Amino acid sequence: MGEERPIRMEVRVELKPGVLDAEAESIEKSLGLLGISHVRHVTTARIYDLDFVDVTAADAQRLADEAVERLLANPVIHRVTVRAATP
Amino acid sequence: MGEERPIRMEVRVELKPGVLDAEAESIEKSLGLLGISHVRHVTTARIYDLDFVDVTAADAQRLADEAVERLLANPVIHRVTVRAATP
Repeated sequence: MGEERPIRMEVRVELKPGVLDAEAESIEKSLGLLGISHVRHVTTARIYDLDFVDVTAADAQRLADEAVERLLANPVIHRVTVRAATP
Repeated sequence: MGEERPIRMEVRVELKPGVLDAEAESIEKSLGLLGISHVRHVTTARIYDLDFVDVTAADAQRLADEAVERLLANPVIHRVTVRAATP
């Protein structure tokens, strides 16, 4: 029997609308200076892929939500989406 | 007539296998300390969503590839995927 396949939860953390995304603004400016045109807007996000083993899909969702709340995001400035993904 | 809907290209930049992901290691350790168990592995990635206007889908792909090559990633350490996404 093979090893259990992990359950991957993809956590996407981005800044809320209205919070300054300095990296995105810097990229917009740099793209213009490089002559890469037609870019109206840039947004950035951070992805955390959490691979869980020996848990149910429901437990993986719950643990990922807990990781977001306690470690990965700041609810004041971040908007977070958590979804199951393929490892 | 409404404004043209932008074409969003999602650029995902992650570290190649074998390149140390210090943030991911720190998160793995912190999750353990917080008692959030069953996490076998964490990987991180950076997302850049580029919204193009007044271009064809093919041009948006070409411009996104150029942005990756000239600004967003380092081919020595990064693995990059570019795909069309929904704004």
